[in-house]
Amino acid sequence: MTKIAILGYGNLGRGVECAIKNSSDMELVAVFTRRDPSTVKIQTAGVPVVKADEAEKWVGKIDLLIICGGSATDLPVLTPKFAKLFNVIDSFDTHARIPEHFANVDAAAKAAGNIAMISVGWDPGLFSLNRVYAESILANGKDYTFWGKGVSQGHSDAVRRIEGVKNAKQYTCPVEAALEAVRSGKNPDLTTREKHTREVFVVAKEGADLAKIENEIKTMPNYFSDYDTTVHFIDEEEFNKNHSGLAHGGFVIRSGKTGWNNEHNHIIEYSLKLDSNPEFTTSVLVAYARAALRMKANGVTGCKTVLDVPPAYLSTMSDEDLRAHCL
Amino acid sequence: MTKIAILGYGNLGRGVECAIKNSSDMELVAVFTRRDPSTVKIQTAGVPVVKADEAEKWVGKIDLLIICGGSATDLPVLTPKFAKLFNVIDSFDTHARIPEHFANVDAAAKAAGNIAMISVGWDPGLFSLNRVYAESILANGKDYTFWGKGVSQGHSDAVRRIEGVKNAKQYTCPVEAALEAVRSGKNPDLTTREKHTREVFVVAKEGADLAKIENEIKTMPNYFSDYDTTVHFIDEEEFNKNHSGLAHGGFVIRSGKTGWNNEHNHIIEYSLKLDSNPEFTTSVLVAYARAALRMKANGVTGCKTVLDVPPAYLSTMSDEDLRAHCL
Repeated sequence: MTKIAILGYGNLGRGVECAIKNSSDMELVAVFTRRDPSTVKIQTAGVPVVKADEAEKWVGKIDLLIICGGSATDLPVLTPKFAKLFNVIDSFDTHARIPEHFANVDAAAKAAGNIAMISVGWDPGLFSLNRVYAESILANGKDYTFWGKGVSQGHSDAVRRIEGVKNAKQYTCPVEAALEAVRSGKNPDLTTREKHTREVFVVAKEGADLAKIENEIKTMPNYFSDYDTTVHFIDEEEFNKNHSGLAHGGFVIRSGKTGWNNEHNHIIEYSLKLDSNPEFTTSVLVAYARAALRMKANGVTGCKTVLDVPPAYLSTMSDEDLRAHCL
Repeated sequence: MTKIAILGYGNLGRGVECAIKNSSDMELVAVFTRRDPSTVKIQTAGVPVVKADEAEKWVGKIDLLIICGGSATDLPVLTPKFAKLFNVIDSFDTHARIPEHFANVDAAAKAAGNIAMISVGWDPGLFSLNRVYAESILANGKDYTFWGKGVSQGHSDAVRRIEGVKNAKQYTCPVEAALEAVRSGKNPDLTTREKHTREVFVVAKEGADLAKIENEIKTMPNYFSDYDTTVHFIDEEEFNKNHSGLAHGGFVIRSGKTGWNNEHNHIIEYSLKLDSNPEFTTSVLVAYARAALRMKANGVTGCKTVLDVPPAYLSTMSDEDLRAHCL
């Protein structure tokens, strides 16, 4: 059994715990937390919750540490730090800062002789894989990524910071007409506004100025001003009943031409429809934890991404069984 | 530039030629044929067409040979034979015989210090990848492969062998209701008849017994008797106008559960809509030819499949560019 530890027990940490329970070849051996361990109640019986400061004592006792934290401030510090102690994996998802994060983690992991895998999840992650496969196969083409329908935590947080807002949830929605235009092979040039709409459900504080809230949302730069946004005011009961989930999903589509005179069109489409974004993301993390340790066993150290991993390494099946049953 | 040669100049060989034209890092240097070379007219200017018997003279002059032949009788002989001379790749697609073909090709390629890649295309190939990725991530789930709407050459051939049939084309069609049931997360158990229908367009010979032809088609064991089949009799003009293409496609869908009590469902769907089955298949072959040579440059020899290939190897982009732009 592969010994896994988790650092950070929020939505992602809980998701990893569930994914390990679903994996026949893995066991959870410790949860590290930056909070007071006595306040953290986990679901797996008999597994200790330990202060993150004491992680060093666990060197040699765990095979890989899954680091569950935010990409803005947590992971840029935590992943290089812990890559010096353990084989690690994270879900760093700030696309623009991946090269910098990669360099920092690579240096730390290489120096320690560990393997580290960053930016594992679905975007970056499975969507990245599909962009690379599709682009490599249909060299003469164009690709499109759509997100949703799903909850954007960042946008929900931004709305909650508006005066008079008690609670809020923001859904990113792909525009069906844009999806259809892409699928038809027309290779349209699409603006931000043409690709996605935003839908916001707001619980307002008593006596709040609803028109003012709605206007502040719709005109908020970066977050909403480039989109067609619909705002719904609802009461707390409806909010809790219908908007407490963390569903998400999306589409990666490549449309490309082949033939001596580019006379044939092809559409490659990959889509996800996820009831729980964190639980799915962490299922991807756990599969890549398996792969990372196989690469390590083959002598690979340093930082890697999903683009470096042979698909067979993710599976619990042997190469022979994969060829016989899945190929 | 990578020097590629083609063995066999039918639909697949022509597709490879187009895909090489679309690849910035590859050039076609020879076409080997088992026919009289003077009867084979290719499209690329200045490239020699050579008797397959003389391929041995090209050792050292080409980087990789793409073997274009049928899986029933051609590839089981040709791929092991030429793996002794060159790095090779094929699209062997008889799923049940992959382990046997793998063993033969692996022995030949290893003995010669070459790399060989088999069963490259979309099924086996891209569909296999998606089955392995999805199954590894959603361990607790079920997967489904649907084909079509598209032309099945084998079924078209079977109909053409019926007395009174002048020409015929068979389309395999996924059943929309079955696709929807799978996408809904219901994990249905589907019979052969529930997953696909078959649609046949027949040009009958003058005076042929149409009712007899229709009955022979619908009751043909293995090919049609387990399916709901629709037969259309049309004239030659309509046949040539509307049924001369080689479009195909399909869907790989996995539906799986996560959560402490399996309370959340997720759908991963991969689909292809292809105007030209052979041109798309060969675009996959050419991308994997690039990858095979990278593996070879890293010291890998013997037989490999798409499941062994790190996705980054397929791309013309550097690892740095892939991380910055595609991850």
